[in-house]
Parts: sequence; C-alpha cells; structure tokens
Amino acid sequence: MWPKTELIDLLKITHPIIQAPMVGASTPELVAAVSNAGGLGSYGGAATAPAKLRSIIRQIRELTDKPFGVNLFAPAVEAYQLTPELLTKWHNELDAGPVPEPIPILGPFVDQFTVLLEEKVPVFSFHFGPAPIEAIREIHAIGSIVLATATTVGEANALIEAGVDVIIAQGFEAGGHRGTFAVPYEHGLIGTAALVPQIADAVSVPVIAAGGIMDARGIVAAFALGASGVQMGTAFLACPENNIPEVYRQAVLKCKDEDTVITEVFSGKPARAIRNRFIREMENNRDKVLPFSAQMSIGRVLYQTSAQQSNPDFVSMWAGQGAALAEALPAGELIEKMIQEFLAITASLQLK
Amino acid sequence: MWPKTELIDLLKITHPIIQAPMVGASTPELVAAVSNAGGLGSYGGAATAPAKLRSIIRQIRELTDKPFGVNLFAPAVEAYQLTPELLTKWHNELDAGPVPEPIPILGPFVDQFTVLLEEKVPVFSFHFGPAPIEAIREIHAIGSIVLATATTVGEANALIEAGVDVIIAQGFEAGGHRGTFAVPYEHGLIGTAALVPQIADAVSVPVIAAGGIMDARGIVAAFALGASGVQMGTAFLACPENNIPEVYRQAVLKCKDEDTVITEVFSGKPARAIRNRFIREMENNRDKVLPFSAQMSIGRVLYQTSAQQSNPDFVSMWAGQGAALAEALPAGELIEKMIQEFLAITASLQLK
Repeated sequence: MWPKTELIDLLKITHPIIQAPMVGASTPELVAAVSNAGGLGSYGGAATAPAKLRSIIRQIRELTDKPFGVNLFAPAVEAYQLTPELLTKWHNELDAGPVPEPIPILGPFVDQFTVLLEEKVPVFSFHFGPAPIEAIREIHAIGSIVLATATTVGEANALIEAGVDVIIAQGFEAGGHRGTFAVPYEHGLIGTAALVPQIADAVSVPVIAAGGIMDARGIVAAFALGASGVQMGTAFLACPENNIPEVYRQAVLKCKDEDTVITEVFSGKPARAIRNRFIREMENNRDKVLPFSAQMSIGRVLYQTSAQQSNPDFVSMWAGQGAALAEALPAGELIEKMIQEFLAITASLQLK
Repeated sequence: MWPKTELIDLLKITHPIIQAPMVGASTPELVAAVSNAGGLGSYGGAATAPAKLRSIIRQIRELTDKPFGVNLFAPAVEAYQLTPELLTKWHNELDAGPVPEPIPILGPFVDQFTVLLEEKVPVFSFHFGPAPIEAIREIHAIGSIVLATATTVGEANALIEAGVDVIIAQGFEAGGHRGTFAVPYEHGLIGTAALVPQIADAVSVPVIAAGGIMDARGIVAAFALGASGVQMGTAFLACPENNIPEVYRQAVLKCKDEDTVITEVFSGKPARAIRNRFIREMENNRDKVLPFSAQMSIGRVLYQTSAQQSNPDFVSMWAGQGAALAEALPAGELIEKMIQEFLAITASLQLK
C-alpha cells in the first residue's frame, strides 16, 4: 500500500513508521508494541550501561520477533566542572539532598556498541554524527542497517560518506536533542518542510522525515516532500507503554504549539523541551550551564525529585512542536489509526 | 482538480497559490503574471506612499482582470533614535555619503488603507496583526476578502475574533518578517509541519500554509497538513518579473539550506534573510539596533549602495529556508510547472 517501499524493504518492516529512540522514555514494551504493529520500535540506549543494554535487547526479543532498532550517541569528549549554586538552591527548596557529583551517564560507547553487535540488533541508529567508519563496516558485516540523523544537507552528505544507509532528516520542530554535529547548532535549525526535500534531492538513499510529524497528515506530507518514511517521538509520548513520569505525560497532553523551546540548560546540548521554571531561570544563568553531558548528570537528582513530587518545574520534558496533537492511545492502536487515516488523506488529495 | 476548493472559491481564483506580497520585491508585472496564471498575485504596499500605491494598483489592473491582493503592515508606533557609528564606518567604506536621518518609510496606514478601499482591491492582507475591527468591516462592506498572518494558534484565534476571513499560517521556515504580533517572537517560531495542522484544527476558515514551500512537493504537503492553499514568496524570488537587485537574485540561487537566519538587524523586527557581513557584525552590536522601522530607514542608503556595487555584504536579502530550490522561471511558467507536478505527486501517493 505504501507509495514508496525502499525503506520498508530495507528495514524488513510493514509500515514506514519509526518510533524515535527516546532516551529515558522508550521501554522494551513500547519498542515491541511498535514493531509488532508493523513499524520499527527503537530503544534509546545511550544512557544505558552495557550489561543492562544486553538484557533490554533480550527483553525486546522476548516481546517481538520483528525488527527493531537501538540508538547510541556517537562518541564525544566529556568534561566536568563546577557545581552551580542554583542547583543547590533548588535542591534545598525540594528537600532533594545534596547535589550529586557529575558521573558519566552516557556510554561507554565501545562497550555498548559491542553488545549491539553481539546481539545482532537489526537496526543501529546514531545521533550526534555517524559512528566511526570501522564501526559501520562491522554493522554491515552482520547484515544490519545503519540510520543516522542529519540536520542540514551538508550533514546528510557527510553521513553518506561515512557509509550510513538511511538518513533521518531532523527538522527544527523535533523534540529532544538536536542531532547537529558538523556545524554550529544554529545552522542546523531547518524546518521539516524545507529540510526534507533538500536532503531528498541531495542523497540517493532513503530519507526518513522527523520533526513535527504527529499523525497521518504529517506522514502524507513527509511522503509528498520526498521522504520514504517518518520518525515520530512526541506522538508516542502519551502512549501507556513508555516510561515517562505522570507529570511529564500530563504536560505533553496540555502542551500548546508555542510551549516548547530549544535549550541547552538540561544537558549541555541544545534540545527541544516544554518550557518550565528550570529553563526560564537557567537561561538567565547560561554561564552556569556545564558542558554535555555533565549538566544532565549533576541535574539528575533534581529532575527525578521534581518528577516524584509531581512538580513539573525541574523535569526535563522533551517534546516537539506538535505535542498538542499527541493522543493517549496504546502504540499499536495509534499506528493502526494513522494507517487508516493515511489512506483517507491520500484518497482525498486526488482529482475531483 | 484541487482537493479543497473553499479558498479558491472565496478568492475567485483558479489555483490556490498565493504569491507572497514581498515589500520591495513585488512589482505590478509579478502580481499580474501570477494572477493571470490563475494564482493570487500580491503587492507588498507597506512602504509605498499612498499616491504611488494608487498608481500601482491601476497598473496591476491594466495588466490583469483577475483578482489580486495588496498587503499592508498593521499600524504600529514608530520611534527614532541615535545613528549607530557602525553605519558611519560602512558608509565611509562604500563611499556612500552621509548616513540618512530616519524618516517614516511605512504608511501612513490610514491613507494607504483608504486608497485600497477606494480602488476596491479584491484581497486585503495584513502582517503584524489584524487591521482595526472597523477597517475589516469596511473591507467586507465593499465585498473584498481579508487575509492575515498568524504564527501561533493563539494568534489565529485572535485574527478570527477580529473578523479575518482566511488565516495565513506562517511557519518558522518563511523568509522575510515574522508576522508575530501577540506573543514574544521567540514563541512564534513554529515549523510549518507542526503549525499548519494545529491551526487547521483550531479554526473553521480556510488556512493558507506559508514557510518552506518551494514547489509542488510543498503544496501537496500543505494540503495533507490541512491547508486549503499556500503562500510562496522565496519561490518567486528568482522570477524575472520581480524587482530585486541582481546580487540578491544571485545570492538566492546560490543559497544553501543553512544559509538563512532570523535577525532583527535590518529593520528592527525579526525577519529571515540570507546571512551576510551586515548580519554578522550587527548581531555583535545588538544594542545599536534601532526599533522597527527606524533601523530600516537609516540603513536604506547603505543597502542600496551595496546592491548597486554588486556587493552582497550590506543588502537585506530576505529569503526562506527553501531558497536553494528557487527556480529562475517566469512566474506563469513556474505556476504551470507546479500544477503539473502536483498532479504527478498526488497520483504517486495512491495505493499500489
């Protein structure tokens, strides 16, 4: 039924809908629900220790025999510095105990990568750049497929050079971390409607559109713009299978079109989240923001305590600009609904 | 042939393609070419003195008997201040004579508006908010239609309250001035893919999608997202009928996806333009930027001199994020090409 089949043939899936590998929100249940419904479920593994990652991959395999993906962050240097006094103030306010020391919360990449290879994960995806070229060769040697994120045409070309099989074109609207890796992040803020056709014109591999796509209207638009599939994260944020705190889920369901912003204050790298007090006050203290991912590390107790207290003020609530359109349905039902609506919309676009 | 006809019926046009009313770039020839091809040509009249505006409207009527639009900026307070020393430095560098005193280069709104009423312009469009409610009543009394720009769902609702007939949903990708009027402009930076379906869900009047739409792919996407038509500006920037300096036209044709930025430095209000030396150096001197439209007024000699010298450094080259896709075709041929491609794309989206 799909107008283009290059992506679904390559990934061996039924529907060209990739659930975005949201670190902290994705679960084996969500991944399996999406894959069982014919899409590609993806687990965000960047912050998962290698042994745990192996057990999660095996859990996914118990829940589905369909292809799925695991996402890692391409390796980067980390640096740790001072503890901002603002965090201390807020810890006191929430009675959250001492501010934790920064610890490595991502990676180690090589060990995570080895687990994915050993477990023969069908689809590897990378954010913040391609994996090293030898790593991509190893993925291809086991017959798996490599997806990676581009936020500009130049980045898409660089990913192709590195051997990536499929480009995820991440538009400005997308929730979570900007995948920008080759240019200052301000240069990588290109809306989905402008980015997808330009990347589709530049590369000969399948392009997945990401950013602002929340329902069948967005899927049809993505195909019209030249994509062969979509990656949707925010659309799955209200699904019961994910792992987000209730206060975050409620914020997504109440989120208006203008309520998200790209900010570096949660992690040290630019990412789109729902505006809250933490963003407002930290944006006025930008010099206190630590580099990625130390900022995420020293903030972790505050974020968790705030969520446990059902207080949205200090929770990192990643979401895209389409959040208002999120529907609280099980992932499988959501996919089925989108497919039916896709058929209705494409039929309605025909000649009268 | 169009899947929805509410907009074309209302505007009495054949194709739901509105040429954006680009101040300084639109000409009677461009407006007429678009209207004669079945779209809606629009003249950007905000910076045109009332008597001149009347003669331009009459010129348009000599070139076409089809409907067309004229755009004005909703009235706002202007303020004038000091002359930045940077401008003096650059005037010396280009041998451009003295920096001019700021003069009112927009309006006067009431006189412009009176001309449009007297000339019975078929379509009035407004940027930076709706016209006063009595003005909209007067437009309706002569049987004309009112379009206005929204950059958020809240703004769309406010325009409906004011009596506007059609909402132009201006996505983040769009070239030129952000139309934001009800919120800080940072809140009105919503990508077309996310903005159009949310506005379409919120209002019952026709929605025109704007921002990043450069060809039939974008037009199909806009319809899929819930729009009844598109407004395209950058797509017409390489047409021979417009009025932009050759150095600007060449910059559009060479523009890459990441080469535009939203900046206040040309006019005092945020607008998307092709990056150049003026933007880079003025952004480092933001405290020297005058309010809208005084900044545009005192910069005018520098911009013109730079253009005359075929030097892109100081020219305000408004363009959207899709500029790389602009085609140097006459406007009528461009529209005909887009219609043929629209038919091919919608057919390709059907069931296999």
